Amino acid sequence: MKLHYAQFSRAVRVAWLLEELELLYEIEKYTIGERALRESDFKKISPLGRVPVLIDGDVTLHESGAIIQYLLAKYSSGFLEKEPTDSNFHQYLQWFHFAEGMIMPPLNTIVVETVLLSPDRKNETNVRRATKILGQILQTVENRLCEVEYLAGEFTAADIMSGHALIMSAHHGVDLNEKPKCKRYIDKLMSRPQLQKAWSL
Amino acid sequence: MKLHYAQFSRAVRVAWLLEELELLYEIEKYTIGERALRESDFKKISPLGRVPVLIDGDVTLHESGAIIQYLLAKYSSGFLEKEPTDSNFHQYLQWFHFAEGMIMPPLNTIVVETVLLSPDRKNETNVRRATKILGQILQTVENRLCEVEYLAGEFTAADIMSGHALIMSAHHGVDLNEKPKCKRYIDKLMSRPQLQKAWSL
Repeated sequence: MKLHYAQFSRAVRVAWLLEELELLYEIEKYTIGERALRESDFKKISPLGRVPVLIDGDVTLHESGAIIQYLLAKYSSGFLEKEPTDSNFHQYLQWFHFAEGMIMPPLNTIVVETVLLSPDRKNETNVRRATKILGQILQTVENRLCEVEYLAGEFTAADIMSGHALIMSAHHGVDLNEKPKCKRYIDKLMSRPQLQKAWSL
Repeated sequence: MKLHYAQFSRAVRVAWLLEELELLYEIEKYTIGERALRESDFKKISPLGRVPVLIDGDVTLHESGAIIQYLLAKYSSGFLEKEPTDSNFHQYLQWFHFAEGMIMPPLNTIVVETVLLSPDRKNETNVRRATKILGQILQTVENRLCEVEYLAGEFTAADIMSGHALIMSAHHGVDLNEKPKCKRYIDKLMSRPQLQKAWSL
């Protein structure tokens, strides 16, 4: 398998899962924003110029959530998932989808405004609005982490999806001072050797 | 089962799937933006005040993608899904996740700016940027629909997720004049009685 990867991107989720599953993979490394991602060679495998892309034999796959479901279905034999008969099955699904459905849209706005756009194009209203919404969204994660250690009870791929989104929020300066459970959860995830490896390939 | 539903929301996806699976359900109906969605009774079941919410016995579940995966796993016996052994399995996953990962974030920006905010707070730069990105994103759907009739080959839940996102794009005035395959695909989906029912509950 080959993973097209960039640090601080959703490709970290895929590398993290590959490490957790102890699968062998090659990486092709990029930097977010670099020219190669907009060039025609890369656009042949990723028309929108995004990472991650996973290539597994004759399968080329985009979207971190899709890649993670694919890898679990093909190679995990149930490890890091919850079965439909498990009492946490719905929690697993909900927190898996919470990453892209809830956390990432306002976080993307913050990243675009504070990292990708030149300072003269930055719009404070957009940042303030996204920061407020993201605060409310992360409060629901905080409330969940008051009840459980991991989002679906035990460590699962839901933590890879939404945990990574939380780590990225902290990385981009989102204030977690009133969210001690989120902070502790991030520390616990970051202490996993599999994530440490995936974080700095 | 009870579905908390609003027209023009992601709850339509869930109702659509419930209709396709011929499952019985009650609905509790709201209007997007209405006060009841921000009141404490509703926030007990949906802390962020969002629809859809599905209640199935003692399970309460948010996030349309999660609810759809839940319903398929519990009640569809493989109908409207692709199995891991199917050659379109990865396409199924990719286009399932494409809805929230790609189409919805810029579409949300357009909806916030043109529907939810008062006209004096509307930011033309945000609308223009989101419209441009969404155009590129929908071009990849157009390209896919030059090859296949439905996103994963046959009609599946990937069409419920990304098809609905496409229909919502058209509903909010996104220009599809140079995307004839997308237009034809929307017409084909809208001709399904199950979607017609779900659209106007």
